[in-house]
Amino acid sequence: MNSPVTPTPAARAAHRPVAYEHIELTGGTWKSWQEVNRETSLPLAVSWLEKAGNFENLRLAAGGTGGEYRGPVYMDSDVYKVLESAVFELQHGPDASLSEFVDRAIALLEAAQQDDGYLNSYFQAVKPGRRYTEMADGHELYCAGHLFQAAVAAHRSIGDDRLLAVSRKFADHLVAEFLERKDPPLDGHPEVETALVELYRATGHDPYLALAKKLVDERGRGLVAPHKWGARSRIDHLPVREAPTVTGHVVRALYMEAGVVDLYLETGDTSLLDASVARWEDMVAARTSLTGGLGSRQVAEVFGECYELPPDLSYNELCSAVASIQWSWRLLLATGEARYADLIERTLYNGFAAARSADGKRYYKGNPLQRRADHAEHVGDPRFRDEWFYSACCPPSYTRLIASLEHYMATVDGDTLFVQQYAPAALSLPLAGGAVKLRMETAYPWDGTVTVTVDEAPGGEWGLAFRIPPWSAKARLEQGGSTREVTRDERGYATVRREWRAGDTVTLRFDMTPRLTVPHPRIDALRGCAAIERGPLVYCFEQIDLAEGVDVDELALLPGSELRVTAEEEIPGIGRTVRIEADTVTVAGAHEAGLPYLTHPAASATTTGRTTATALPYFQWDNRGDGAMRVWMPLADN
Amino acid sequence: MNSPVTPTPAARAAHRPVAYEHIELTGGTWKSWQEVNRETSLPLAVSWLEKAGNFENLRLAAGGTGGEYRGPVYMDSDVYKVLESAVFELQHGPDASLSEFVDRAIALLEAAQQDDGYLNSYFQAVKPGRRYTEMADGHELYCAGHLFQAAVAAHRSIGDDRLLAVSRKFADHLVAEFLERKDPPLDGHPEVETALVELYRATGHDPYLALAKKLVDERGRGLVAPHKWGARSRIDHLPVREAPTVTGHVVRALYMEAGVVDLYLETGDTSLLDASVARWEDMVAARTSLTGGLGSRQVAEVFGECYELPPDLSYNELCSAVASIQWSWRLLLATGEARYADLIERTLYNGFAAARSADGKRYYKGNPLQRRADHAEHVGDPRFRDEWFYSACCPPSYTRLIASLEHYMATVDGDTLFVQQYAPAALSLPLAGGAVKLRMETAYPWDGTVTVTVDEAPGGEWGLAFRIPPWSAKARLEQGGSTREVTRDERGYATVRREWRAGDTVTLRFDMTPRLTVPHPRIDALRGCAAIERGPLVYCFEQIDLAEGVDVDELALLPGSELRVTAEEEIPGIGRTVRIEADTVTVAGAHEAGLPYLTHPAASATTTGRTTATALPYFQWDNRGDGAMRVWMPLADN
Repeated sequence: MNSPVTPTPAARAAHRPVAYEHIELTGGTWKSWQEVNRETSLPLAVSWLEKAGNFENLRLAAGGTGGEYRGPVYMDSDVYKVLESAVFELQHGPDASLSEFVDRAIALLEAAQQDDGYLNSYFQAVKPGRRYTEMADGHELYCAGHLFQAAVAAHRSIGDDRLLAVSRKFADHLVAEFLERKDPPLDGHPEVETALVELYRATGHDPYLALAKKLVDERGRGLVAPHKWGARSRIDHLPVREAPTVTGHVVRALYMEAGVVDLYLETGDTSLLDASVARWEDMVAARTSLTGGLGSRQVAEVFGECYELPPDLSYNELCSAVASIQWSWRLLLATGEARYADLIERTLYNGFAAARSADGKRYYKGNPLQRRADHAEHVGDPRFRDEWFYSACCPPSYTRLIASLEHYMATVDGDTLFVQQYAPAALSLPLAGGAVKLRMETAYPWDGTVTVTVDEAPGGEWGLAFRIPPWSAKARLEQGGSTREVTRDERGYATVRREWRAGDTVTLRFDMTPRLTVPHPRIDALRGCAAIERGPLVYCFEQIDLAEGVDVDELALLPGSELRVTAEEEIPGIGRTVRIEADTVTVAGAHEAGLPYLTHPAASATTTGRTTATALPYFQWDNRGDGAMRVWMPLADN
Repeated sequence: MNSPVTPTPAARAAHRPVAYEHIELTGGTWKSWQEVNRETSLPLAVSWLEKAGNFENLRLAAGGTGGEYRGPVYMDSDVYKVLESAVFELQHGPDASLSEFVDRAIALLEAAQQDDGYLNSYFQAVKPGRRYTEMADGHELYCAGHLFQAAVAAHRSIGDDRLLAVSRKFADHLVAEFLERKDPPLDGHPEVETALVELYRATGHDPYLALAKKLVDERGRGLVAPHKWGARSRIDHLPVREAPTVTGHVVRALYMEAGVVDLYLETGDTSLLDASVARWEDMVAARTSLTGGLGSRQVAEVFGECYELPPDLSYNELCSAVASIQWSWRLLLATGEARYADLIERTLYNGFAAARSADGKRYYKGNPLQRRADHAEHVGDPRFRDEWFYSACCPPSYTRLIASLEHYMATVDGDTLFVQQYAPAALSLPLAGGAVKLRMETAYPWDGTVTVTVDEAPGGEWGLAFRIPPWSAKARLEQGGSTREVTRDERGYATVRREWRAGDTVTLRFDMTPRLTVPHPRIDALRGCAAIERGPLVYCFEQIDLAEGVDVDELALLPGSELRVTAEEEIPGIGRTVRIEADTVTVAGAHEAGLPYLTHPAASATTTGRTTATALPYFQWDNRGDGAMRVWMPLADN
């Protein structure tokens, strides 16, 4: 099997992933994202590894130059993540330039690796002799983890084991260094835990799993050096089996969770799964933006308090979205429950997809749900997309997820294929009963109709299960000439079990009626607001789409407004889309000069200018200039 | 004249300050704050200068020890601010311990000062030879400014000119270094500008004013080295005569404004005043919390966008409140308009006073208007008061303002005394027509009655003007046996001009009816909420005051609720107060498991448990444990 997460045959996986070679995207939104990734984003990422100094750092470590180390301590991780992206992408077909990059990068890494297996350009070039002495912020094991993930990806996807050899040498060194050590220093940034489990899966070498277990078990005992933002920020405040909520630095927290669930999968220790599920439920119920974005605070990049979800100030880092998808995917494999795929869908089509510009060239690290007209006031966090960053974690997180997107489409349990996400694709895979071949056709997410045609089927009964998205109040399923309404079963699916024959089709029709979504009353930052959604897409209003004189910062929705879906269209600079019109008014302050506060019951607002405003999918925002935008709209009183 | 801001006789001041020796607090809230300051806060601050290393740094600079520099680069400024606090406090009466501190500190500074006048323990001890090479973050002129302010305060308040000698030597060096230099590097943190004007006032030495003018004029041309947060954050994005709004780092911006207005006062350059007034109006209209707090973002400690005023996340730094009062006070002197005293009152009684614990021992740097029950999630910014800080700018900002509080009570224009703030006090001062002696008696801010008794009056007509607070919808004035309703004149006052005789009284009765205050509709973070105010005080609900089972995070006000004022009382740990009862309900989410979002028009909330909740003045919060608190309360729908 070759998937980013491939549990061993003995693993406690309720569902199994579908190997890459068994799925092919044949069109649609996902494929178009991958094409932009291949043609633009990945070559740009490769070029930045030279421009930003990552390669030069490795050359320094290899002893070949007299230059100066550039960038933050975790520069190597960018190399690994671009490598991982490249080997995923090479599954889609040969690319001489990408292969040349892979060869070049691996040669550099081989040259830089020390005889005992250690490999880290920062500590080799800048702080020789200081290995493992600055674990709280040094990112040594974090970088090692990204190396292992890239190596496992290369092994699985293109059968190239050169990086795996580098990784094993490094991992054997880590095992020797840490496995038996009492109170080992822990890396301030989790990541190596999930990577070690994957390395174990790819090699069958038990000590890697044992080391992952040790690093997970020791966490929460204060072994990460004290940090000015406290043990919570470094996910070291409580043991993973005891911590009741997600907290602290979001990416650190979620990479840790991926390791925790991976460890459950391979050990069957249900205390790990139970604790991780409880934290996932807490995160979803009280700390997740409508777009799937995570991290309410830019300061320290942390989760906020319960229901602290400010649309303008939330960080919602791109890396958090990727980490969230990685965690949910492992929980889906562990449990088979569709709710994890529901969150993946929401995150993927909104918080994640919005980060990259439509042309594939620029990224947001932070992804707020609101930008005011005077957003130039923003200080300290880019409010515009950029090609690359000093701390460049996000762009290669994007490229590696996009290049492996088809892996997240389906799962298998015995003789049943579970379709988790909908996109035009061809699947050809072995089920318990024999080989199955089928095609999925859909204009998702623009249209809610999905048709699956069985091209080859083994004899006997087998199942086709479809995740019914929770946003589809009604879903209809047509099969064998009859139509029925289907609802989510207790795990979130509608399943058709029968003796399929070649040529059989199933058609699903999801309810794509636009929805007005209102927030939980505890979300202080969204009180009195509503957002428009349709299918899996969250919508937003951009200033550029409003009539002259209408200001998105003063726009309010009429609660009874009909939400009118416009015809599918092609917008220059954005591409294919479906927009939604709503009835709106302008609400301005009735205040005179002075403070923006009035004594009740004085009227504090004036409502004027009823008009129609057009909303665009959030993931397509900011491709036509840098104007104001908002997802959550005040509801006018009348 | 001895006041923290004493314009020269030639200055364009519409109002003049009243010298310290002409005002004495005789009781009430202000005096109680000063007593706690004298007995507890100031001695603690003095002790921290030794504990935190400030003194040791100066000894290092003087060449006397082999220790290591401790703390941030601006450690000297804490010494200067505690000195300034001490000399203000010594006006109230002798204190051997404070005097000993003053002597000791001055001796250290004299010893540390270099022969050419330069004085900065960080650059002397840590970076000799690197003077003026790290201006963006080095704080050299910032520290110099605080030295000058302390020196001028010592000169004016206790007639001690030792610090003035140190300051002149340093300032003469700065004049030689910078006055004629083309494109001088500018300090990333303004402060020296206002201090140089004050030094000019105290010495009459023109080059100090000329240097202040140069540093103000050159600002906004990019002479501050580039900073990762941009020129805005360092107040170097536009010349001060052109910048339309306040922006960037709040304390930097407001210290700069103080210098700009001081420069106007001494030069009459109205382009400076006009621009500063326009920015003050922008700040008040769109960037000021109900408590007077400033700075919506913890990241970079900056002003936010227009109407970005999140109650939970705003920084509202204590130093910002002090800087705001300093700026408004100078604008009040420049224009005579009461609106500046209005903001001083709001800031003083709320955002400023809340920062210190009632026992005088601990401070908040950040002063949010909401703290949720699970606020331990807060990372990166103290959500609890502390005695001192690594960056300890705030505590001595508090002690120096409190120790000089009476200076902000009144102003004079010719033969009229303007009472700007109300507190029990005795005033004895010369007006244009002769010497006046009067007493003010009041239980303000607990009660709205203020009685002024004239004890001595010169012959002829002269005026007593009273600022009518804008929150007092109705104010009554009793004088000479008759009562009339008074309103604010165009500058914000009600004035009584007559031939006063000894024994005459005037009584003002302000409207202390509790008010429900609602926000401007553009303040996204406060939509659907209201706050309770009474007189100058903003109120809040603390968890500790709620009935069992009632959660402040779920509490909502009934819009029609009667606000009932309870009898004045004494609360242990807090002291004298007046509380307010309101009718409330509990609003909880109607959501089942999953995301905190529902499709409209599904009911998203359930309302239960009508009860009475008791609110406390915000400035008295967090003196009884660390529970949840909120100022802005959701308004229940019914």
